[in-house]
Amino acid sequence: MQNNTPFVLYEMSGHVVWLTMNRPQERNPLSSKMIRALTEAVDRATHDPDVRVIVLTGAGPVFSAGHDLKEMSGKTEGCEPDPEKRISTILADCAHMMLSLVRSPKPVIACVQGTASAAGCQLVSMCDLAIAQSEAKFCAPGVNIGTFCTTPLVGIGRNMHRKHAMELALTGDMFSAEDAFRFGLINRAVDATALREEVESLAQKIAAKSAVGISSGKRAFYHQIEETMEQAYKIASLDMLQAMMSEECDEGVAAFFEKRAPHWKGL
Amino acid sequence: MQNNTPFVLYEMSGHVVWLTMNRPQERNPLSSKMIRALTEAVDRATHDPDVRVIVLTGAGPVFSAGHDLKEMSGKTEGCEPDPEKRISTILADCAHMMLSLVRSPKPVIACVQGTASAAGCQLVSMCDLAIAQSEAKFCAPGVNIGTFCTTPLVGIGRNMHRKHAMELALTGDMFSAEDAFRFGLINRAVDATALREEVESLAQKIAAKSAVGISSGKRAFYHQIEETMEQAYKIASLDMLQAMMSEECDEGVAAFFEKRAPHWKGL
Amino acid sequence: MQNNTPFVLYEMSGHVVWLTMNRPQERNPLSSKMIRALTEAVDRATHDPDVRVIVLTGAGPVFSAGHDLKEMSGKTEGCEPDPEKRISTILADCAHMMLSLVRSPKPVIACVQGTASAAGCQLVSMCDLAIAQSEAKFCAPGVNIGTFCTTPLVGIGRNMHRKHAMELALTGDMFSAEDAFRFGLINRAVDATALREEVESLAQKIAAKSAVGISSGKRAFYHQIEETMEQAYKIASLDMLQAMMSEECDEGVAAFFEKRAPHWKGL
Repeated sequence: MQNNTPFVLYEMSGHVVWLTMNRPQERNPLSSKMIRALTEAVDRATHDPDVRVIVLTGAGPVFSAGHDLKEMSGKTEGCEPDPEKRISTILADCAHMMLSLVRSPKPVIACVQGTASAAGCQLVSMCDLAIAQSEAKFCAPGVNIGTFCTTPLVGIGRNMHRKHAMELALTGDMFSAEDAFRFGLINRAVDATALREEVESLAQKIAAKSAVGISSGKRAFYHQIEETMEQAYKIASLDMLQAMMSEECDEGVAAFFEKRAPHWKGL
Repeated sequence: MQNNTPFVLYEMSGHVVWLTMNRPQERNPLSSKMIRALTEAVDRATHDPDVRVIVLTGAGPVFSAGHDLKEMSGKTEGCEPDPEKRISTILADCAHMMLSLVRSPKPVIACVQGTASAAGCQLVSMCDLAIAQSEAKFCAPGVNIGTFCTTPLVGIGRNMHRKHAMELALTGDMFSAEDAFRFGLINRAVDATALREEVESLAQKIAAKSAVGISSGKRAFYHQIEETMEQAYKIASLDMLQAMMSEECDEGVAAFFEKRAPHWKGL
Repeated sequence: MQNNTPFVLYEMSGHVVWLTMNRPQERNPLSSKMIRALTEAVDRATHDPDVRVIVLTGAGPVFSAGHDLKEMSGKTEGCEPDPEKRISTILADCAHMMLSLVRSPKPVIACVQGTASAAGCQLVSMCDLAIAQSEAKFCAPGVNIGTFCTTPLVGIGRNMHRKHAMELALTGDMFSAEDAFRFGLINRAVDATALREEVESLAQKIAAKSAVGISSGKRAFYHQIEETMEQAYKIASLDMLQAMMSEECDEGVAAFFEKRAPHWKGL
């Protein structure tokens, strides 16, 4: 029986879009189809003038189980028969999708409602912010199938200290939301019953800020953080100059001095 | 009524200099004048042979409120009328002042006696060490005026994990000293009544060490930390070799074996 | 009376090798001889097909006191008389040994049974993982002998946030295992009586994983983490592709679907 529901749900809540990975029975694996659906959904949200904040979550008890091992190992009907072509295409498409979260001018919040494994854990790491429910688990278990969570560690390793990243990857163990919080992978853990409300509240707060300012600032942050401090100041100062000469900033400063709420333009 | 008191107080305590931002009524904004006064004070301390450690603090309930929005938006009497010239000059001067804290061969300790906002929070991040009073608040609220704390994130983003930096900048919220401690932005938080004594004690402890050793080591640290690990070992090994062949080290090692206090030279 | 016991003990426990620095009376200093013995032991373990995990520990109450100041300052019989040659050779050999821990395809776990000072603390930082007993102490006290822990900070500075690294190096103070845990220098602290058992258990767990997968993943991690995120994804994706097309992964995935334990090949 084929499942004809969308791989990713796209639901607006004010200026916030909720993207929900929608293969709960299969534990939301990052199959080619799911990767394509996520790429399209992020792209759509990026270009949708009504969207100011993107939330990424999963249906069911698992956020995402990571790559689809059946497809990776060529057991899925209709998949590319050549292993090198098949696997390299999936990995390239997946990296492209992961990077699109960072490249989107709109803030992305992971709403981690359940286990985030391997590339699923990577997905959390690539979001700008993350809130998890306190029973959620996190792991990088590639080591258990004769490989290693090598690509997930690109994102995970930029979210936390080296010994923590290596602990995740070398043991393959399940780590608690408390550990993920301690590592820096999530901003906080909340009770399962409060999760959606907490994420919605954070997203709406950010959606009420200037999309123009956030767009410029997010791009500058991920650009400068990879440079030397001196070069970083040059990059950031140029972006800051543009932002401070914008109409959006004129309005923001006027509202500040007039003690009123600002009226932001869209992107 | 013009305020003729200095923008930055310069007060010696043994070999420690306390630099105090001195516009408490205005919440110590980083106006052109304050930036110039800080630059001059750090430069003076750097070249003053009596100074071994620099402490940076603020007068009044606010450490620093960050950039002076009145001046930035051209509302200050006598300010440069062309917005691009005005803003780019302030940003360049500010980045130069911030980098001078890292470039000074002398350790800089932030004594955060009150709220550190925006570029004020950046100022804390650029110091080598920071102690705050436990009621101090920290924020990066550029997002509230249609911009983003893009330049502050150069320093802040090098003090803590990415998700914490983005949490500060995307929400614009006030964070507690406890959060700042958890993020890595401050070394510790202490009771308000104990703050100056704690900072003084830390500063005097460091002032009793070799200024020659610290000067070489601080420069090497900020240099090597931006390089690959292999290149970092080359840089650090050369600096370590010079340090270990210095008279200062001869004296330090002799004192160590003779179980007596060393007699350090100045810089 | 000359001590003819080996500088470093090499003891197998299943597929785990325990390397024990064996100059407890002298506090396991990183003398030329100890550095050479560690280099040879790590090299032997790296090339020994029976070894899957390396544990590094010290005999006696001190993990390692760091460089041998007597030798560094030319007071050891038979040492190179020219200071520049002597010190630069020790520093180069030490950096080479430190980097060999990162370059080894096998995971290295520090078992910190006592104080780790200066280059001894650096040794902990260069291991992939570290467990300490809860009474162990950590310090970077070069600043007390007229130098600075400049080379130790290459490793230490890549394990923790900047303000924590500078706190260690500028104060020279002893820090607790609790602090080291908070900084990210160690993965956990356990009761002294449980230390060896905990490390053995972690090492055996990792030794039961695929050496092929770990070897590829460890190399990729330390390579990509020094690159921009975009470049990192290219590097990691190539390594991941190779790993996923390996026989080891075929076996791992087969075992996963057949719900049986995998049979790994050696390196």
